[in-house]
Amino acid sequence: MKLRNGKLITVIAEAIVSDRIIREILRLGATGYSAHPVSGQGSRGVRASLGERKNVRIETVVNESVADRILHLLSESYVQPYAVIVFARDVEVLSGGEYL
Amino acid sequence: MKLRNGKLITVIAEAIVSDRIIREILRLGATGYSAHPVSGQGSRGVRASLGERKNVRIETVVNESVADRILHLLSESYVQPYAVIVFARDVEVLSGGEYL
Amino acid sequence: MKLRNGKLITVIAEAIVSDRIIREILRLGATGYSAHPVSGQGSRGVRASLGERKNVRIETVVNESVADRILHLLSESYVQPYAVIVFARDVEVLSGGEYL
Repeated sequence: MKLRNGKLITVIAEAIVSDRIIREILRLGATGYSAHPVSGQGSRGVRASLGERKNVRIETVVNESVADRILHLLSESYVQPYAVIVFARDVEVLSGGEYL
Repeated sequence: MKLRNGKLITVIAEAIVSDRIIREILRLGATGYSAHPVSGQGSRGVRASLGERKNVRIETVVNESVADRILHLLSESYVQPYAVIVFARDVEVLSGGEYL
Repeated sequence: MKLRNGKLITVIAEAIVSDRIIREILRLGATGYSAHPVSGQGSRGVRASLGERKNVRIETVVNESVADRILHLLSESYVQPYAVIVFARDVEVLSGGEYL
């Protein structure tokens, strides 16, 4: 069993900007991602009724340097204008090594 | 790029109680959440067929003191009677600071 | 409030193999799981259009020894042939102790 260290990055973004973020993530070196719709509300914008606002939750597991590139880009171009939520943490990844 | 420390709390609850938990989370100081349906089974109740039982997975990122309040409330009022699953871990949050 | 240490394991697998993985996870000692469909792409296989490929994201929280058994089995029997993505991290679990 081979466990490697990786960074799990989660992005919660409005549906309208989520495909663009996924393309950026892949362009910056991620070799995979998963995405699914979520309801919710964030700290900015109109406070929606529970469950009303449709967002997308995007997840990718990458190595440290790709994580840095992704976090920098999201910080500079997406967090402020698009009210995107981004968080990261260390994970142990079971892998043949293809995506780290 | 500004990374802050936060707590990511995940709650998995039956659909019938999930809206109430979301309101409690917001009342206790969370400024956002995301939620989506999941199938699954827990450690209590009738063992359902795979994929049969409908739960909701709720996620929120908060600071340490809000996390403590949320975990205390869930522990006292939801874990036992509603068979709610709750887990928390530290995350690094990319943010303008609005929700931590 | 009682917080215990646990391992959160996430598996992202093609839908066709996900039920089998869930059964293995429960057989190896997990007392619960949650699952939901995600779109995405991984590092192997045909590169799909964004959002085209349907996977399932499975999550379970277990103690250290059950985590080891699950990770070993997935490593030996699923990661290579099924292009399954698996990652794990420590979490604090709010619980009456039923599933750790």
